[in-house]
Amino acid sequence: MASLIYTEDVADERLDEFRDLTTADRRPDRPGGRGLVIAEGTVVVRRLLCSPYRVRALLGVERRIAELTDELAGLAVPAYVTSAEVMAKVVGFHLNRGVLATADRVPRPPLERIVAGARVLAVLEGVGDHENLGALFRNAAALGVDGVLLGPGCADPLYRRSVRVSMGHVLRVPFTALDKWPQSLDVLRDHGFRVAALTPRAGSVPLRELTATADEQVALLLGSEGHGLSEEAIAAADVAVRIPMAEGVDSLNVATAGAVAFYELTGRGGRAGS
Amino acid sequence: MASLIYTEDVADERLDEFRDLTTADRRPDRPGGRGLVIAEGTVVVRRLLCSPYRVRALLGVERRIAELTDELAGLAVPAYVTSAEVMAKVVGFHLNRGVLATADRVPRPPLERIVAGARVLAVLEGVGDHENLGALFRNAAALGVDGVLLGPGCADPLYRRSVRVSMGHVLRVPFTALDKWPQSLDVLRDHGFRVAALTPRAGSVPLRELTATADEQVALLLGSEGHGLSEEAIAAADVAVRIPMAEGVDSLNVATAGAVAFYELTGRGGRAGS
Repeated sequence: MASLIYTEDVADERLDEFRDLTTADRRPDRPGGRGLVIAEGTVVVRRLLCSPYRVRALLGVERRIAELTDELAGLAVPAYVTSAEVMAKVVGFHLNRGVLATADRVPRPPLERIVAGARVLAVLEGVGDHENLGALFRNAAALGVDGVLLGPGCADPLYRRSVRVSMGHVLRVPFTALDKWPQSLDVLRDHGFRVAALTPRAGSVPLRELTATADEQVALLLGSEGHGLSEEAIAAADVAVRIPMAEGVDSLNVATAGAVAFYELTGRGGRAGS
Repeated sequence: MASLIYTEDVADERLDEFRDLTTADRRPDRPGGRGLVIAEGTVVVRRLLCSPYRVRALLGVERRIAELTDELAGLAVPAYVTSAEVMAKVVGFHLNRGVLATADRVPRPPLERIVAGARVLAVLEGVGDHENLGALFRNAAALGVDGVLLGPGCADPLYRRSVRVSMGHVLRVPFTALDKWPQSLDVLRDHGFRVAALTPRAGSVPLRELTATADEQVALLLGSEGHGLSEEAIAAADVAVRIPMAEGVDSLNVATAGAVAFYELTGRGGRAGS
């Protein structure tokens, strides 16, 4: 069982890694200058506890820590229990989810480990908004995408806001960064993937046509909401696909477009040929 | 042409309806206590100018007003041109979209007018979050949903943040409120609609099964993200449908779930039987 430690001392040094959360993502003292993984709320803390990330400590109000009793059994980490008032002073604002956990980052896995056994992958280019990135992971998890690959210009999925918006699914869906862009896409092709660029441009084919003929491995490229995929990325893909939209409407939010495409590509809508 | 009026006077009374936008949605002096329709940015202002809402005035920096020259031709409203600094002082914060327009609200149309000729409708219950509501309208517009019906507990689609998140599509997709819940659903049935409740509960059928057999009119009920549809709403539907999800994942954001369902129901993914 995690050891429950009661404290009402705002200055308690043991709470330092929970302090001033609004700046917690900038940690020049840590590897890469990046902060710890921070999970907020019982739902996300539960996902963290079942993830490969090693939990360091928890901080919460008594009621929220009690909700996690089962998950904390057998876990040798401190769980600091305090009042909502002290918690607010430590983290710097009122956190109505009432519980936090910290964890160490882990090295990003090699591309081959994510590709092996995967059928549908999402490949992101220029998704620099933490909320869109988090939402993409949530949608990938819900709709059965096997992994996420980060091209240039993407935000950090382990940034606190991404973790929260993803409902903790960034801790669950495997991801890594592609080191050469767009050359790394060849690695996917070598592993049998068809690389499809999602873009509304002329000449792209309706998503369904891809699904209808492809009960195969697909890597779907998604670009930033502002500018979409780069010319370079579209040229590097095997096929350009689009979501057929109503006249006069330009685009969906990138995470929403991802959800629709994931639904189609993972076969959740069935297959036209079946 | 709209008359261009240059002013650098923060206290200029003609700018009063653009003042202090963070509280602009509360207007006890106006019908229903609700504020004017406010469009932010050239994209949304353009949608407003093509909408049934009567524009009252514009306020913007010169460059943004100039971008709207074509749309403003033939429009007899004042367009106040000022600096970014004065604009920030008037609206109460720096608005990097650089242009605003105000319009009068219009009475909500009768249900019959929205139902006539529609094939797919979205019916919302308890969607009280302005961003989710705005995103639902954006998704409805992009994926060809013909109208949105508001059940109990829904936020105001014309609230400033909803307008912005919808990218102005709340001004374009017809909507109205249902006055009796869930009895008003009978009106939809009388018009030939099948009423489908989107819910992950046991016994719901995959969305695709509905599409596969139904080249018919569908009204899709969507519930709040927190609690989903009420028992009452599900019982009042003809069928319960779900988006098949990966194991261990509970739900998608309501606007995202809506997008996937709209894609399927409007036939953008094709039909299983075709």
